[in-house]
Amino acid sequence: MTTPQQLTTITTTASRVAPIVAATTDTERAAWLEAVADTLDAHVDELVALADSETSLGTTRLTGEVARTTGQLRLFAGVVREGSYLDATIDHANPAATPPTPDLRRMMRPLGPVAVFSASNFPFAFSVAGGDAASALAVGCPVIVKAHPAHPLLSRRTAELVTEALRDAGAPEGAFALVEGVETGSELVRSPAIEAVGFTGSVHGGRALFDLAVSRPKPVPFYGELGSLNPVLVTPSAVSDELAAGLAGSFTLGVGQFCTKPGVVFVPRGSDFGDRLVAAVGSPAPAPMLSADLASGFASGVARLAAVDGVTTLLGGEQAEATGSPVVLSTTVSALLADPESVLVECFGPATLLVEYGSVDDALEAIAAVGGSLTATLHATPADDSAEIAESLARISGRVLFGGWPTGVAVNWAQQHGGPWPSTTSSTHTSVGAAAVRRWLRPVAYQSAPSAVLPPALRDGNPLGIPRRVDGVLALG
Amino acid sequence: MTTPQQLTTITTTASRVAPIVAATTDTERAAWLEAVADTLDAHVDELVALADSETSLGTTRLTGEVARTTGQLRLFAGVVREGSYLDATIDHANPAATPPTPDLRRMMRPLGPVAVFSASNFPFAFSVAGGDAASALAVGCPVIVKAHPAHPLLSRRTAELVTEALRDAGAPEGAFALVEGVETGSELVRSPAIEAVGFTGSVHGGRALFDLAVSRPKPVPFYGELGSLNPVLVTPSAVSDELAAGLAGSFTLGVGQFCTKPGVVFVPRGSDFGDRLVAAVGSPAPAPMLSADLASGFASGVARLAAVDGVTTLLGGEQAEATGSPVVLSTTVSALLADPESVLVECFGPATLLVEYGSVDDALEAIAAVGGSLTATLHATPADDSAEIAESLARISGRVLFGGWPTGVAVNWAQQHGGPWPSTTSSTHTSVGAAAVRRWLRPVAYQSAPSAVLPPALRDGNPLGIPRRVDGVLALG
Repeated sequence: MTTPQQLTTITTTASRVAPIVAATTDTERAAWLEAVADTLDAHVDELVALADSETSLGTTRLTGEVARTTGQLRLFAGVVREGSYLDATIDHANPAATPPTPDLRRMMRPLGPVAVFSASNFPFAFSVAGGDAASALAVGCPVIVKAHPAHPLLSRRTAELVTEALRDAGAPEGAFALVEGVETGSELVRSPAIEAVGFTGSVHGGRALFDLAVSRPKPVPFYGELGSLNPVLVTPSAVSDELAAGLAGSFTLGVGQFCTKPGVVFVPRGSDFGDRLVAAVGSPAPAPMLSADLASGFASGVARLAAVDGVTTLLGGEQAEATGSPVVLSTTVSALLADPESVLVECFGPATLLVEYGSVDDALEAIAAVGGSLTATLHATPADDSAEIAESLARISGRVLFGGWPTGVAVNWAQQHGGPWPSTTSSTHTSVGAAAVRRWLRPVAYQSAPSAVLPPALRDGNPLGIPRRVDGVLALG
Repeated sequence: MTTPQQLTTITTTASRVAPIVAATTDTERAAWLEAVADTLDAHVDELVALADSETSLGTTRLTGEVARTTGQLRLFAGVVREGSYLDATIDHANPAATPPTPDLRRMMRPLGPVAVFSASNFPFAFSVAGGDAASALAVGCPVIVKAHPAHPLLSRRTAELVTEALRDAGAPEGAFALVEGVETGSELVRSPAIEAVGFTGSVHGGRALFDLAVSRPKPVPFYGELGSLNPVLVTPSAVSDELAAGLAGSFTLGVGQFCTKPGVVFVPRGSDFGDRLVAAVGSPAPAPMLSADLASGFASGVARLAAVDGVTTLLGGEQAEATGSPVVLSTTVSALLADPESVLVECFGPATLLVEYGSVDDALEAIAAVGGSLTATLHATPADDSAEIAESLARISGRVLFGGWPTGVAVNWAQQHGGPWPSTTSSTHTSVGAAAVRRWLRPVAYQSAPSAVLPPALRDGNPLGIPRRVDGVLALG
């Protein structure tokens, strides 16, 4: 555990180096990220073995996750080199205006030291060198990562590699640090040195830290990705064995330990989709979950849900110690609407709840009750009128899928990972994809500034060659 | 006052029409805003007379403020027509990637009904048809404005004109509403219908509403512009009579009732800047303030500040009922640093505090203690090394001025009105200028969507002709 004294040293150092990190160029920081990516790639076997010993996620998945993680680092390197993220905007002085307007130049600047809370279920992609840390470092914010207690050895080893790579690449000492301990995490959020917080985890833990962040004497932005039911709507014409097999694969993937797992699936009443799904799942052996705590939480959550009036168990139920076995439950729109608080709970693990609907309108009413989700998925056929359904799904989620399954999150420019509460604390941002850098930035305008004091991004002649808006007109670099 | 029943009707209606407003085109909403602007311009004499009777701000200033307000409405019309604000981003499917990635298209969508709290000191530009309302309506959010009690008649008349203009321009009934009453305002922030809040006012009132917004079961973004000291640093070589005259004009403008008023001015020790300033201010007649409450708050705030150890009064002090007279106080960096909480308080009215410094480094240390401000201003000459000073000023503010004075805020693409706490609750946004629309938006990504269900902004062929990023490459419309 990190002692209070150590934490103070770390946060004080982060504050001290923040202006130094902020003053580095995008090219320099892009090179830091690429150095970190190269180091992780070079140590992939060691890291995957360590991760598997702590998470039981398996070497195939974990190897893929390292590749995703180094891909993220390289994406953010590209994002800052490209320069649009700076939102550079120049309005020249207009002495003819009433009243006359001065020369104004606006761009994004780093917020300062950022706290990042690791997730249990992505020991690489949402942990020590994950997307939050990468996006914050990319734009010039020092990063202090709170390790997740489910993979401490991996966290420490990753932090060692990141620290070495950053040092070798010329980053200032103290631009990156790892801390451990629950109380340390709370103190970190309270620290006056911290200017923003990134978090991936449960609604309960996330809300508690959110409340800390916003009740500080100086509140700071808290970007939390919490829980999500990820509703799926299957129209009558879309029911098929293939669809059942797809859902079976998605909700059991990684032992159901994904924030994008399809947790509630609306299916037409009287269809045999439940039977098809149970057949598709089969009877796999119980699989170890990320931690014994998570497994027992899954078992009790599923048991509670199965006991709600109007909910029946189609498959599974009993869970063996520290493992998860697939569970398929079933209910109806009317039972859901009669007691939404009991029915609409996320069971983090391999469970999904089928909800039988009479008409698509009834299903949409129930989906509105599901509230905020990271994703919402429609399985329809061209014969269905999808436009209105798509609008309803967009109102409650950050990513609307037409076919396919929400597990699997591409890391690119168009990705959106964040939706209305409770799926995130800040639906106006994303924690995956290029736009994730925006969480760590604030605008600063320079009025009538001499060229010598302007950041290069705002100087005449566009020395960085980046996209800019000049006198209202966007121009490419 | 708005009754609880009326408020419920208004918020319920706003929720109901939100999808209808969201489904309108940018061109349609731009026309709404222009219709509102035209109506306000057509009624300028009536509105200015009403405003002057309630605010005593004078017809010249108020006529200019109407022009600014209608200019804002037209700017936001242009912003949504231009379309960059949608941040339209397309990543085509890449079957060759590991793992393969689907077609993903992301854009900004309106958050839903928004609450806007009017300010006392800008009865037009930050009130019923002000920047918050205009920017939210522009992007498709219904707006419920809480009137400021200092100008109720103007608020009601403006709301009538806005409502008529919107109706005539084809906006749905209920896309705009006015409410009144302190308790009504709190209930509005608590309403589940409200998805975000804009506020301009005091630190005390703003913090109370911020706390309400973030402690809701479903927290919502709160964009508050609270208080600001707007520090000014004058280097030894920049001291002049002209500078003193400029400061005198700026801190007394509008009886000092601007959030960008220069409230604390760092001047070299041993210079005669204080004498020059007192001479420049002269002895104007006491001027009526916006309200008797504000005037008595100003009088007591100035008296408290004048009584702090190490603070001396160079000009003024006693205040007559309901009016404000210029006050110039003076202190030193060491007195400021000895008791920052007593010295660094905003006196909303025509007062400024000179702080004598020994070295520029001492001044920068004190400016760091000032904390977050909307603006920070440097008065230097080419002989001064301004680059490091500029960095220090950028760390604590949202707009850094080189020469000139912070009162007077151009409304254009590059403006930034928002800085670190306590000047705003959200330093990552602006409440003035084109980027103000971003406060009311959240991203939604569409995965593998059929063209027919996609919003036009994301369809192949770019039917709207807007700037978009396609496969990572930004392209103009």
